[in-house]
Amino acid sequence: MVVGLLDGRVRSGAEPLLRPDDAGAMRGEGVFETILVQGGQPRDLPEHLARLAKSATMLDFQGPPDADWLHGVHAVLGAFPGGDLVLRLVSTRGPAGAPPTCYVTGTPVPDEVLRQRVQGVAVLLLDRGFAGSDAAAAPWMLTSAKTLSYAVNMAALRHARSMGADDVIFVGRDGAVMEAPTATVVVVRDRTLVTPPLDGILDGITVVRLIRAAQDAGWATAYERLTPDDLSAADGVFLVSSVRLVAPVTSIDEVPRPGAERAGELLDLLDAPPR
Amino acid sequence: MVVGLLDGRVRSGAEPLLRPDDAGAMRGEGVFETILVQGGQPRDLPEHLARLAKSATMLDFQGPPDADWLHGVHAVLGAFPGGDLVLRLVSTRGPAGAPPTCYVTGTPVPDEVLRQRVQGVAVLLLDRGFAGSDAAAAPWMLTSAKTLSYAVNMAALRHARSMGADDVIFVGRDGAVMEAPTATVVVVRDRTLVTPPLDGILDGITVVRLIRAAQDAGWATAYERLTPDDLSAADGVFLVSSVRLVAPVTSIDEVPRPGAERAGELLDLLDAPPR
Repeated sequence: MVVGLLDGRVRSGAEPLLRPDDAGAMRGEGVFETILVQGGQPRDLPEHLARLAKSATMLDFQGPPDADWLHGVHAVLGAFPGGDLVLRLVSTRGPAGAPPTCYVTGTPVPDEVLRQRVQGVAVLLLDRGFAGSDAAAAPWMLTSAKTLSYAVNMAALRHARSMGADDVIFVGRDGAVMEAPTATVVVVRDRTLVTPPLDGILDGITVVRLIRAAQDAGWATAYERLTPDDLSAADGVFLVSSVRLVAPVTSIDEVPRPGAERAGELLDLLDAPPR
Repeated sequence: MVVGLLDGRVRSGAEPLLRPDDAGAMRGEGVFETILVQGGQPRDLPEHLARLAKSATMLDFQGPPDADWLHGVHAVLGAFPGGDLVLRLVSTRGPAGAPPTCYVTGTPVPDEVLRQRVQGVAVLLLDRGFAGSDAAAAPWMLTSAKTLSYAVNMAALRHARSMGADDVIFVGRDGAVMEAPTATVVVVRDRTLVTPPLDGILDGITVVRLIRAAQDAGWATAYERLTPDDLSAADGVFLVSSVRLVAPVTSIDEVPRPGAERAGELLDLLDAPPR
């Protein structure tokens, strides 16, 4: 791992960086973004910087200006010239009375990500414990911020893996499909692309890019309440996220499902130049 | 802040300790305990060590043995001989492939804590977004683990403070009183002490101590579903936690309430020697 600081310095990931009293380390108080770099080019960098700032605002602190982040990003990109990698931008609230702790990491794209794009993922439906609409009414639940308090997402993924699955789709207490721990759910029906409304879930950057590209290509698109039955009935179900891009769902609760071959269409849409 | 490592070394809080790729810093994957030290004596240390280990198990990692923690604790206590302080024991999952990152911090007891014990707290009732029983049925929600993913608790407290209150009592979607972001809710009716059942909330160490002492002193005690109306009707409402011990609730949603003077009885119970 390469670590870039916002003054442009590069360090090793093995060198301690955070103080023990950093609010990020003590209470998960911070925000982050993960960004895919292909051939040296970060995807959707302005959108990720905008979401990072929005998440920080929801946690009631202000991170550095975009120009500072770009120093850190370019410092890391310089260590992988022209390469493919994963960037992670992290901003904690910092220690009490100190400014936010901000850094950028660069790591190779995990083999698992590349494999799941091609082979797809076996998914378990898990109860999210609440309804998206209820979470949206309680803004302190921070469901629309991408915070460092990610232990629940990680616990859900571990639970799925202990059951032999690869990933999770959370279902709300109202029976509505919500999101995956690190991805947005997208359903394809013929030439229509559907994703759940944003109540209580994160506004995905890659899914917005996908929706625009699909519209440009003449598809119909909708934010629409989906149930597990809707997933079963769809032509294809996909997990869409910044690093994995598109992973076809090949089974839900151990029931195999078709449509994985349509992942290629979605990947093509993502890579189509805007009209 | 004094920081004790588990090999007994003491460091300054200003010295970076966590790697940027530590799962605690990246995803709030870790556990912690806060412990009050009075006259050099940590309160309920074995119980806190047991809960720390239990929380780590819920996050599917194993922290160090108690004997190692005691090295860190005693290193910090040595910097405050015979004093009053707050200990924080932190164990993150660590960087991928590395052992957990473990440390103990020692800080003076905040003035605010001492003030709230005496003057009490104005409390806002906030919607938790889910029902405790639903969370209990979804163990990946980790509501019974004390994790570093505390951003929601901090956001709720900030919301309360922006409304002129000091603290929060969370109410579940089923209308049941749950807990405060960093404390257990206790209600007193005559010589009966009532606290909510453990569905979807943290098992408080100080409240267990209080219940035992109350029983020893001839009080009735119960884990019982409470509603906001039950809080209004009670003789006294208190927030009970390891550092603040007992803070009387002096108003709920800006409506003043009586009973603060009974905090002294509860503090006396906590300090009574076991029969």
